[in-house]
Amino acid sequence: MLADQQFLRIPGPSPIPPSVQLAMGKPMIGHRDQEAKSLIKQLKPRLNPIFGTKEDVLILTGSGTAALEMAVVNSVEPGDEVLVLVSGSFGDRFTKICQAYGIHVHRLDTKWGEAINPKDVETYLQAHPDLKGVFSTYCETSTGVLNPVKEIATVVRHHSDALIIVDGVSCVGAVPVEMDNWGIDILVTGSQKAFMLPAGLAFVAASERAWNRIEENNTPRFYLDLKRYRDSIKNDTTPFTPALSLLFGLEQVLRLLETEGLENVFGRHRLMMQMTRSAFKAHHIELLTTDEAASPTVTAVKPTDFKAEEFRKILNEEFKVSIAGGQHQLKGKIFRIGHMGYCSPADVLQTISLIEMALIRIGKTVELGRGIAAAQKTYLA
Amino acid sequence: MLADQQFLRIPGPSPIPPSVQLAMGKPMIGHRDQEAKSLIKQLKPRLNPIFGTKEDVLILTGSGTAALEMAVVNSVEPGDEVLVLVSGSFGDRFTKICQAYGIHVHRLDTKWGEAINPKDVETYLQAHPDLKGVFSTYCETSTGVLNPVKEIATVVRHHSDALIIVDGVSCVGAVPVEMDNWGIDILVTGSQKAFMLPAGLAFVAASERAWNRIEENNTPRFYLDLKRYRDSIKNDTTPFTPALSLLFGLEQVLRLLETEGLENVFGRHRLMMQMTRSAFKAHHIELLTTDEAASPTVTAVKPTDFKAEEFRKILNEEFKVSIAGGQHQLKGKIFRIGHMGYCSPADVLQTISLIEMALIRIGKTVELGRGIAAAQKTYLA
Repeated sequence: MLADQQFLRIPGPSPIPPSVQLAMGKPMIGHRDQEAKSLIKQLKPRLNPIFGTKEDVLILTGSGTAALEMAVVNSVEPGDEVLVLVSGSFGDRFTKICQAYGIHVHRLDTKWGEAINPKDVETYLQAHPDLKGVFSTYCETSTGVLNPVKEIATVVRHHSDALIIVDGVSCVGAVPVEMDNWGIDILVTGSQKAFMLPAGLAFVAASERAWNRIEENNTPRFYLDLKRYRDSIKNDTTPFTPALSLLFGLEQVLRLLETEGLENVFGRHRLMMQMTRSAFKAHHIELLTTDEAASPTVTAVKPTDFKAEEFRKILNEEFKVSIAGGQHQLKGKIFRIGHMGYCSPADVLQTISLIEMALIRIGKTVELGRGIAAAQKTYLA
Repeated sequence: MLADQQFLRIPGPSPIPPSVQLAMGKPMIGHRDQEAKSLIKQLKPRLNPIFGTKEDVLILTGSGTAALEMAVVNSVEPGDEVLVLVSGSFGDRFTKICQAYGIHVHRLDTKWGEAINPKDVETYLQAHPDLKGVFSTYCETSTGVLNPVKEIATVVRHHSDALIIVDGVSCVGAVPVEMDNWGIDILVTGSQKAFMLPAGLAFVAASERAWNRIEENNTPRFYLDLKRYRDSIKNDTTPFTPALSLLFGLEQVLRLLETEGLENVFGRHRLMMQMTRSAFKAHHIELLTTDEAASPTVTAVKPTDFKAEEFRKILNEEFKVSIAGGQHQLKGKIFRIGHMGYCSPADVLQTISLIEMALIRIGKTVELGRGIAAAQKTYLA
């Protein structure tokens, strides 16, 4: 097939828009120069609507995990009791980070592929009134579940003084989030998902309530000390050298999101999810999650009569489509299709048409075009 | 829909591969520097297989029309009698260029949408033995016809001393051409079609027989004087300032073509043509050309129960797909889909899935997915 063509349909990193790629090619500048300050100054307010907060959204040079760790080390201290809501491998990661710092972790596990039930959180909180933090994952990338963080936050606020910390890595920018209105205390995301950038930047915002705890927090920290970032951004700068090319790209990303309009961006992601799901349903191929629990950014498919890994291999080798496999307990049992960021309904149709052909190649009997027709109908409805 | 996404499916300019775009971003160099000479030296032999010639393929900075004019002013002189084989608007352009130079033009017209019949050329040549040149169009972009230039060249060689001049603009690089074996005297193409570059470069090669005539040709010319280009390329340079960024890009284009392999490139184009045609046939939508006359680079569709221009408008506005309309006598009567250069079967499937939705939008009753299924079957066959 055509050289130089690859369809990146994993749930992040996501494809980079050409205009963002070009923007990142801008000549380097000094990060303490006025030009860098001007850039950060104009980027700053444009991040607020994406997080749904009036607080400053701080920019960290690091990957999503750095931002998760930043959330942990600033909000709770060794010996504190916290609740981690685990619905997949990224919830699990929160527990590992907490444990590395000697934090006493309570886990509330849900079956992988299902969403956290706020009622279960409520029951747990009633039995454990001394929790200092509740950690949850908005989109659980490993299962394609969008957890009801709004409802979870409401329950936590009602029953506890725990800070509500949300990992929004694989969905913020693609789905609605109202940090202030929902009562989220710390929200983090990364650059390589709905933000349409390479990995390397992470974004963190904290509520006033969180800032009070952060001020008092004695966990040893330096690079990940949120206070340093807050103090720096007031002067339109960062405490440490920022990944400037990614900031050049971020400026163009924000322009793209503003041009399309955030509501339209959210609508596009919902539509891509619905199109993808309708295509698999038309072929009677099982989805891991219910419609209600499904994330607009990633769809997990659970094949029962063909091998996920064999299918992924053909799809990648012959059709140049990269999708993700399952992680941990779901390894070999599911495959995951990303539809986030620089991805459109037209791309979903292309992916499905190639998926249908790959299914034929691995010997599955499918009616060609059936999934496409279902997705087209969903679009046109 | 998604900002920053546009599907360029006109029959040229064609999309630029990302790696070619990056290559063109290389810092500028002096065109008389050693680096430029080294570049041209290594590009030169890599163009020969694409043209199927052992002669130097000369590089002109200009568009396809500049190359057509170059072919005219170097091969024939004012007052000479020539035959132009006209199967569409680019055949017609050859007549206009010839007329601008006071050349006596005989036209052999075929119905737009049909290929030139070599037998008609034979009959014409028998009645007009004194022709100095026969001009033909390999792919007639305006109709999606691939003319049988091999057979035409055979007939011309057999019955006449006329030079055989071929416009290969919208197909060379995507379809086989054996300039030397077929007896073509002058072959030209441009950079913005199968060469996957922006417009700005044109490529011209001439046979030994042609060079003898070029040497004796007295038509006043300077920028388009082929002899200057021949003399310069012997020293790995160009007579006038070349479009260097495009040469940087050309280096990467050749790498892509060589990586895929020319035979595979030709096969991919044939397959894209077959997939496109099978999709429209599945929907019982008329094609302008027969299978035998169809070009692997562009497909012309002749709708009978919907308006081509209304359809093109919706396809562009809602689905971000640019396709071309009809030209001159076919204006409003056909639309044309390019599938050349940086375009794959996966792109064809995407285009067809969007076309099906645009047909629904303009009120045509189509069975969604039917064209896709036909194209998928063609691919998998």
